[in-house]
Amino acid sequence: MKLLKSAACGAILFALCISTSIFAAKPISDAQKETAQGLLDDALKSELGFNIVESLTTEVGARLAGSEAEQRALAWGKKLGESLGFDRVAIEEFSIPFWDRGDLELSLTEPYAQHLHGTALGGAAPSKGQIKAEVVYFRSLNELMDVKAGALKNKVAFVDGDLLVKSQTGAGYSNANQRRRIGWQHAERGGAKALLVRSVGSDSHRFPHTGMMSSKEGEWAKIPVIAISNPDADQMRRLHKLGKDVSVSLSSGSKWKGEERSGNVVMDLIGSEKPEEIVLIGGHIDSWDLGTGAVDDGAGVAITTAAAALIAKLPKRPKRTIRVVMFGAEEVGILGARAYAKQHADELANHVLATESDFGAQTVWQLVSNVNPDANAFIDDVAQLLNQIGVVRGGSNVAGGGPDITPLATAGVPTIRLNQNGMDYFDLHHTPDDTLDKINPQELAQNVAAYAATIYLAADSDVEFRLPKK
Amino acid sequence: MKLLKSAACGAILFALCISTSIFAAKPISDAQKETAQGLLDDALKSELGFNIVESLTTEVGARLAGSEAEQRALAWGKKLGESLGFDRVAIEEFSIPFWDRGDLELSLTEPYAQHLHGTALGGAAPSKGQIKAEVVYFRSLNELMDVKAGALKNKVAFVDGDLLVKSQTGAGYSNANQRRRIGWQHAERGGAKALLVRSVGSDSHRFPHTGMMSSKEGEWAKIPVIAISNPDADQMRRLHKLGKDVSVSLSSGSKWKGEERSGNVVMDLIGSEKPEEIVLIGGHIDSWDLGTGAVDDGAGVAITTAAAALIAKLPKRPKRTIRVVMFGAEEVGILGARAYAKQHADELANHVLATESDFGAQTVWQLVSNVNPDANAFIDDVAQLLNQIGVVRGGSNVAGGGPDITPLATAGVPTIRLNQNGMDYFDLHHTPDDTLDKINPQELAQNVAAYAATIYLAADSDVEFRLPKK
Repeated sequence: MKLLKSAACGAILFALCISTSIFAAKPISDAQKETAQGLLDDALKSELGFNIVESLTTEVGARLAGSEAEQRALAWGKKLGESLGFDRVAIEEFSIPFWDRGDLELSLTEPYAQHLHGTALGGAAPSKGQIKAEVVYFRSLNELMDVKAGALKNKVAFVDGDLLVKSQTGAGYSNANQRRRIGWQHAERGGAKALLVRSVGSDSHRFPHTGMMSSKEGEWAKIPVIAISNPDADQMRRLHKLGKDVSVSLSSGSKWKGEERSGNVVMDLIGSEKPEEIVLIGGHIDSWDLGTGAVDDGAGVAITTAAAALIAKLPKRPKRTIRVVMFGAEEVGILGARAYAKQHADELANHVLATESDFGAQTVWQLVSNVNPDANAFIDDVAQLLNQIGVVRGGSNVAGGGPDITPLATAGVPTIRLNQNGMDYFDLHHTPDDTLDKINPQELAQNVAAYAATIYLAADSDVEFRLPKK
Repeated sequence: MKLLKSAACGAILFALCISTSIFAAKPISDAQKETAQGLLDDALKSELGFNIVESLTTEVGARLAGSEAEQRALAWGKKLGESLGFDRVAIEEFSIPFWDRGDLELSLTEPYAQHLHGTALGGAAPSKGQIKAEVVYFRSLNELMDVKAGALKNKVAFVDGDLLVKSQTGAGYSNANQRRRIGWQHAERGGAKALLVRSVGSDSHRFPHTGMMSSKEGEWAKIPVIAISNPDADQMRRLHKLGKDVSVSLSSGSKWKGEERSGNVVMDLIGSEKPEEIVLIGGHIDSWDLGTGAVDDGAGVAITTAAAALIAKLPKRPKRTIRVVMFGAEEVGILGARAYAKQHADELANHVLATESDFGAQTVWQLVSNVNPDANAFIDDVAQLLNQIGVVRGGSNVAGGGPDITPLATAGVPTIRLNQNGMDYFDLHHTPDDTLDKINPQELAQNVAAYAATIYLAADSDVEFRLPKK
């Protein structure tokens, strides 16, 4: 590749080829490599990452977007950043519409009385009293999408589906999750009084996974929408197979409750040579209200903060600014990320690279990227360095960067992603089971190592990750 | 062993030695072995066991002792027994004191507000309004046992402990379970307003395990006693380590509610030659109210009923009567088993062997016994036959027979036990997670095979399992 490139250099491209070939030849200096190796070694021995997520889950716990607990988490984040030697720490506020889960009662009444384990989906409406109705069974979202307008009048719809397959990559989630996202739109069109959906998870525990629905042109569901756990959905399926008429009784207090404050914690290590150029990393500090947000996404906050904190201890700041953002209000529609992109619109062109950790705390196994093709040699070298801790190079044009990076990526910011093994992620996320005990401190330390080395190298580099402006 | 025995035969023991040596030489005939092999083969291919536990959990679900659901379960059991060709099926009623869980609200209020996942322990008193109090931490039950009278006045006690180690045998459970059993007696002596205990389980899910406490000379706790899940107990321990003052707020509606009906379903295959001699097997049909009682103990009901049903299809009834008992009210103090022993006191001397399946539905791996030593050769031969399905012979004087067999064993009835692998049992039992999906149909079929072959051989045998009367 390098030989070919050199051979192709003509006079007209001389200057560009010189510049490209310098990076291609040696994107990372020996001194930088040595520093990165030191970061890897230190991070693997450090308990900082685990201590951070332990502190967040113990001292704050669940922190629903817009809640008082999220405010406490933001204050916790600011204090943490200040204690770890960041050069600049600020809470950047914004406001969001606040949705509250309320209380739920849900039972099968016919053909056999049994309690069902359910939880409201984000954005769902309250039941206004008790709903007692017959259930219409749909084997899949596709079946519900075919329902005729008015065909579900006075009924409750139930959309079944399949147990999510556990995988390293989380394959299948987005597709399965459509029943959570848009099922309500079809149930409402059918005239249903409420919608029950098989919770989207790979576990077989009695905890349904909550999660946000999608609005339809800004409009939210006018009916209660309830996820039920996989074992409870199995029960619904068995009853359907028995050919029995099924009825449920439910009351749900979930509802929108006006505007509340949220915020992002923005923490900078100011670059020593090009402070205006920003390498952004982060996680989201809000969590669903059911668990204590350990894997989703206390881990991401901890990993990226700890990685930057290790870099902060180096004798000299890297050339570019490293910015850690603890995004607020991610779960309810990446509202913190959208606010950030708006509040920082003027400097987005200076965001040279961005990535988020928001896929749990099992080990990083793959480095993918979506950067200027000329920068791929640099990413290749980073991946090679990370190979010693179990990371391989993945696709060079596939990284989305993570949910909170979406608004930046849309604005043209280059992205990478250190892909975590997601084998346990959809067992836990959005359930009460998302707690600290699910995190293996050694695996978390490997994450911190991968982030620290990668981000240091990107920030101390002159490599241009951005595509030239059109 | 056989040679030694023969050599030891003196004139005075002649008759006894003859009789012993007949059994020792060939406790199981070739024809019996062939029939038992056929039962093994059929059982491994049969779905009957799984169908039974599927039906019970789907059509009844949770069935707390003394509840209307337990009554439905008894009717279900009677109908099932009649449909499977038992010669005699009856519900034998008795009455029990009824304890109801009620509703619980439990939260940390200091130093950090967080919700805690708790559930009342069986026999606990209600809170009479809301209790708000400081928590006194005890690392173990032993520490609480040392508490001075009155030292916990106006406090809530929390007894920590360790995560139960997963094991094949369930080792450690009885010991760990003492904090559930008798912790309240020491908390009350200390004057505590309530007791929280780390739930006794090997899982790390957010479901506390309920279970009965022990009464003290017939007296039950006068305070609320609440098990909290392992992740929540971890939180309490972390706060204690941080040296923080911890307070909780709780209200619990659990209470005794007078006498209610319960019952045992007793189903016989009447013996063809010695109908008065009874080989008793069973499981318990009641369950805790939280799950649907699949592994505890729908599985035991299914395994033993299916095993007997396969024997019922043989051309001829075995010599002795095979009795399947679905015991009621086991969870609340083996009350069904006690009622059975009382109601059948006259024929207990004719119970030649008894065993219960009440340790889940993973494969049987060991056959243990507690019978007349002269009958051990027979048990050895049974174990040898079962070796093809993964069963080994265990101790010859250790079998308790199972919880519901205790009153019979105490009355001198010989016992065996087909020990199930309990690796997952204490992850699930007494929690909402005890549902059908946790049962592997193939493993359940192996259980049915082990029971069918063993019980057929015991019932068609002349072997004397009982010790001679003193």
